Amino acid sequence: MARITALAASDHLDRLRLVLVRTRNPLNIGAAARAMSNFGFSQLRVVRPYDPAFREARSAVGAAELLANAVEYEDLADAVADCTLIVGTTSVGSRELQQPMYSLPEGAKLIRKHLASGPVALLFGSEKIGLTNADLAHCRWLMRIPTRERHRSMNLGQAVAVCLYELTCEDKAAPKMAAPPAATAAELERLTEVLHETLQVSGYLKRSSMTGEEKIRRLVRRLHLAPEDAEALLGMLRQILWKLK
Amino acid sequence: MARITALAASDHLDRLRLVLVRTRNPLNIGAAARAMSNFGFSQLRVVRPYDPAFREARSAVGAAELLANAVEYEDLADAVADCTLIVGTTSVGSRELQQPMYSLPEGAKLIRKHLASGPVALLFGSEKIGLTNADLAHCRWLMRIPTRERHRSMNLGQAVAVCLYELTCEDKAAPKMAAPPAATAAELERLTEVLHETLQVSGYLKRSSMTGEEKIRRLVRRLHLAPEDAEALLGMLRQILWKLK
Repeated sequence: MARITALAASDHLDRLRLVLVRTRNPLNIGAAARAMSNFGFSQLRVVRPYDPAFREARSAVGAAELLANAVEYEDLADAVADCTLIVGTTSVGSRELQQPMYSLPEGAKLIRKHLASGPVALLFGSEKIGLTNADLAHCRWLMRIPTRERHRSMNLGQAVAVCLYELTCEDKAAPKMAAPPAATAAELERLTEVLHETLQVSGYLKRSSMTGEEKIRRLVRRLHLAPEDAEALLGMLRQILWKLK
Repeated sequence: MARITALAASDHLDRLRLVLVRTRNPLNIGAAARAMSNFGFSQLRVVRPYDPAFREARSAVGAAELLANAVEYEDLADAVADCTLIVGTTSVGSRELQQPMYSLPEGAKLIRKHLASGPVALLFGSEKIGLTNADLAHCRWLMRIPTRERHRSMNLGQAVAVCLYELTCEDKAAPKMAAPPAATAAELERLTEVLHETLQVSGYLKRSSMTGEEKIRRLVRRLHLAPEDAEALLGMLRQILWKLK
């Protein structure tokens, strides 16, 4: 099944609240805002950011307005109060946790499904320690980006970007991609003939054996030429042949 | 179909070369290194980084060794010479471009398939202008992260993370068919040079404009040449060129 990307209004992307909890580096808040704008999200909420001047983060390229409109909360409970599904992100393995844990591809599907019916909060913790157990207690379930066991912890801005990307991708029946246009057999045959003659005149083929011509014919067919490229190559060869003669 | 994540050795993740071209901010190189380590990649290459001290980027949390082992190049052609598939990333729409363009989910599938048979270079351009037309001419095809039309351009470190995440996800249903063997970028570059010279000598190119060489470079990349075919064509062109002279 091919995955296709849909940034359609029907996905209710505006129902997602991205909630950054106790973020230390304002650059990461800006980077999160930029990724939100890239993928069509708009509702940013921050809980007790370390730097009160986070709205000036220069990393929010193209998303300054989104960042300016971010809503600030003292308390996580308030930040997620209007949501009907709260999902926490973590880089910790499932054994240490008390809640159901989904890998991002699975979790993103569940979130998309839920967005059709109501607002969802997606939580990211601080750069150093992530979400605390107290934060996680607000979550219905947890989600993990499938990173390597030996280097699990991602940069916050990158983790946000990866999650939002996955949220805007969806499984659908493979869209039938038209095969690229191809040169006709007649065009390829003209090319074969001119190439063959050029090779003869240049002395590459010492004698005009059928074997030689067949080899050239097969070679030309292996090139998967588009009509314009066949045309271009033919033009080149004709000029070369003219010059050689 | 559920997408599952596989960071298995069978995915040949070590065959991917992440190539950062003229990156301005060393923090972004560090962030790229961190994302590579998170998702199990190891081969980082940088072409003319703006800051020679990029290896000290503090953003490479957990990936200092990977960053220290990054290989530096003066020239993009050298940085991709051993690769059999070169893919450029861009945030530009397909209408403005001369090469096939895939959305990340489709492109990642093709790259994964190719990694089973040979090394792949994935190119990211500078923060301000991305990859130039001269850079793009080295690429077989281009890939775009499906961002919003009105805010396409992502932060470099975030774009790298999203691409690498997608590369390590796979459709379980997807058949594991290795791509056919392909000529390396170095082989294609030799072919490009000899073809260019032949066309000049023959009078096909009236003047040696860079545009002419870029067009030829793109044409050669579109041919999907197997190593033997690249070799055969090179032999033909050399003979023709010798005769013309």
